[in-house]
Amino acid sequence: MDLKELFDKIEENIDKKITLTGWIKNHRKQKEFGFIDFSDGTCFKHIQIVYDNNISNFEEIQKLHVGCAIKITGTLKKSLGAGQDYEVVLESYKLEGDCPEDYPIQPKRHSMEFLREQAYLRPRTNTFQAVFRVRSMAAFAIHKYFQENGYIYVNTPLITTADCEGENQMFKITTLDLNNPPKLQDGKVDMLADLFKKQAYITGTGQLHGEAFALAFKKIYTFGPTFRTENSNTKTHANEFWMIEPEIAFCDLNDLMDIEEDMLKYIVKYILDNCSEEITFFDKFIQKGIKEKLEKLVNSKFKRITHHEAIDILKQANIKWEFEPNYEDDIAKEHEKYITEYFNTPVFITTWPKDIKAWYMKLNEDNKTVAAVDLEVPGIGELMGGSQREENYDKLLERIKEMKIDYNSVDWFCNLRKYGGCYHSGFGLGFERLIMYLTGIENIRDVIPFPRTPGNCDF
Amino acid sequence: MDLKELFDKIEENIDKKITLTGWIKNHRKQKEFGFIDFSDGTCFKHIQIVYDNNISNFEEIQKLHVGCAIKITGTLKKSLGAGQDYEVVLESYKLEGDCPEDYPIQPKRHSMEFLREQAYLRPRTNTFQAVFRVRSMAAFAIHKYFQENGYIYVNTPLITTADCEGENQMFKITTLDLNNPPKLQDGKVDMLADLFKKQAYITGTGQLHGEAFALAFKKIYTFGPTFRTENSNTKTHANEFWMIEPEIAFCDLNDLMDIEEDMLKYIVKYILDNCSEEITFFDKFIQKGIKEKLEKLVNSKFKRITHHEAIDILKQANIKWEFEPNYEDDIAKEHEKYITEYFNTPVFITTWPKDIKAWYMKLNEDNKTVAAVDLEVPGIGELMGGSQREENYDKLLERIKEMKIDYNSVDWFCNLRKYGGCYHSGFGLGFERLIMYLTGIENIRDVIPFPRTPGNCDF
Repeated sequence: MDLKELFDKIEENIDKKITLTGWIKNHRKQKEFGFIDFSDGTCFKHIQIVYDNNISNFEEIQKLHVGCAIKITGTLKKSLGAGQDYEVVLESYKLEGDCPEDYPIQPKRHSMEFLREQAYLRPRTNTFQAVFRVRSMAAFAIHKYFQENGYIYVNTPLITTADCEGENQMFKITTLDLNNPPKLQDGKVDMLADLFKKQAYITGTGQLHGEAFALAFKKIYTFGPTFRTENSNTKTHANEFWMIEPEIAFCDLNDLMDIEEDMLKYIVKYILDNCSEEITFFDKFIQKGIKEKLEKLVNSKFKRITHHEAIDILKQANIKWEFEPNYEDDIAKEHEKYITEYFNTPVFITTWPKDIKAWYMKLNEDNKTVAAVDLEVPGIGELMGGSQREENYDKLLERIKEMKIDYNSVDWFCNLRKYGGCYHSGFGLGFERLIMYLTGIENIRDVIPFPRTPGNCDF
Repeated sequence: MDLKELFDKIEENIDKKITLTGWIKNHRKQKEFGFIDFSDGTCFKHIQIVYDNNISNFEEIQKLHVGCAIKITGTLKKSLGAGQDYEVVLESYKLEGDCPEDYPIQPKRHSMEFLREQAYLRPRTNTFQAVFRVRSMAAFAIHKYFQENGYIYVNTPLITTADCEGENQMFKITTLDLNNPPKLQDGKVDMLADLFKKQAYITGTGQLHGEAFALAFKKIYTFGPTFRTENSNTKTHANEFWMIEPEIAFCDLNDLMDIEEDMLKYIVKYILDNCSEEITFFDKFIQKGIKEKLEKLVNSKFKRITHHEAIDILKQANIKWEFEPNYEDDIAKEHEKYITEYFNTPVFITTWPKDIKAWYMKLNEDNKTVAAVDLEVPGIGELMGGSQREENYDKLLERIKEMKIDYNSVDWFCNLRKYGGCYHSGFGLGFERLIMYLTGIENIRDVIPFPRTPGNCDF
């Protein structure tokens, strides 16, 4: 029986004999009795297992180490002790896997840095049990939201030859021997000898391919890994991370904001409803007030302003900025923070200067701004970025020339505008960013099972 | 309104004015009236739009091309014509995006080969509408099954430095300039200059990392892309594909077979319940009898035999084999076919010769076989492969030496056996193989949105 099943039907099981398999999280030994803190990872709750010296193999049991895998049989009882409502009175056990005393995960507080060095063991700690359960549940909430709303899940390819992001931002992949690649007469590597007969990359976005499917299924979403080569060691950068990229045909920027708001509230509500113990834990040990923050988001009405209006507000603020707000520029972290605090709610900022946004975004009639939107959320800053896409073939081509993008690698993408193209929009949500928001965890390395950052790929 | 919403509440909408956005799939024009076959991709069904010359812009409407994106308003009526139950009497329309007459997707039967060359447009055809909707629904069914049964979804890393599969089977990734990489004195590439300071790969499995999480959460699954460099142009090979890899602690080979059987029936039933129109389409145009085949699987009891028993049956068969069955060898396609037809049901084959299976599989007491299991399914052959894992540290180490695997790249994986390891099992399900089974599509290139095969990475 899983511990989750037991807790789901705990009252029915009182005085019944039960069998559990799992691990010893802590073991307090007294002269005549002992308490085992037991968990099997299927729920955040642990259960206490008690035994006394009436049990036949008392001395053997007392030697059981923290970390051991055991199978236990006993009777579930209401607990008379403080600290837990139920306990299992041990009748018999079987040691499934021992654990030496130098086991790194002892029942005490370890630093996050130490636990990163034990990446393969850290999911056994309370913090990471909570984080990775929330990650799993949030992933499901996302699928559930989109499927219930009629979206098609598309597995866009990770291997790509479209270098629209600039090849320096993408990992090159190859099957060639790097030490001895076949060469052309001019000394360059003969890419025709590689598996795809040209340089291929692993991609940083599924958007281009997602658009092709949106123009067939109307509403689609991707949810998969993406890669960036950024040589950046910050709390928010990783070289491998997961993205959700919905794309919707016959959808303008206002429709898109409706969807973003609806989706985010749905996910947060799902986590509040299904991970209440984990959220209570985060509230106590990771980020005070996080529960209230999440509940507030579900019940809020997101604000919508233009980039120009945002700059107005920033300029009028009586603050000495590190970066002076400017109508032509992006907004800095400090600005994001001010804007969300100013409105005390998530804020959509729309209508951005075209020069600081991507080439595929729809040019507004002013010829200066694009129909882009960033969602700024209190406490985390930018959580999603989206836009209406340029649906005009000629305008798109002009932008491609301006940005010096290789047309041949995106010709099919441009053709989508020729063959029954229509106004359409999409956004990207960084999954790790969302998990950081939901858990209060401040370093992206601590919401990814095995994080990849510059120089770090050991597990 | 989406077409799916309309069909879900079709009777309520009769005689009501409705607005739809979508695409013209066909356009039959008569002198005084016309019929537009209209779809928006949100469901497999199309709807007919009718108009006659009483409409003000009759001549303009008659010029609308196949493939156009339009917005239409009209009144829903029960249809008096043959071929459809309902139709929309057109009142007004807006052309959202034109489509030239050379549009490659015309309302006629195109070959699968031709459509592969139009990969960005083919999701608009009936066949690919059905295939990719089933793919999306099946993905959700998988998530739903595991989440309902208390599994944790784990995003195992794709970038890895563990070369346990043999580096020739994995794509190397790099940020270095292939034409001019930094070199060491001995002439080799200086991998310390690369982003991860060593050679990294994109992986073909999440199992090793999955095991680390199973020993923390008891029941986990992965569902993500995997890569293989195989230079193989067959109907069943792709260089990028998706895998589902569940891993369960305190689970032996029999428990594992129970889970595999339960999961597969759940997915197939979900598709039968939620994609009945698509399945009917496949039954008619792709693979006769597929509906019955799927229904039969849901109601069958899977057979369980050993590899030795399978070879016995093959040897006793009165058949001239291309590959002679042998107790020491793998079984060939022709053998798989015979075995599933012999039992007329899916068959689990267990207890395989260790030399033809992977190094991490549990060695049986005979020292000759491993606790592995393949599921053979009528009509498709091997669908899943799994095993109990070697939980004994010393035996695992011995196998690693035998197989000449670099211990340093899997030391943490081995340590899982030292720190509260326990008997545990897992399996892999190739997602594309499953979709081929569910749809009757015979070429893996036609169940992947943008397939990657040797020399093919154009979109």
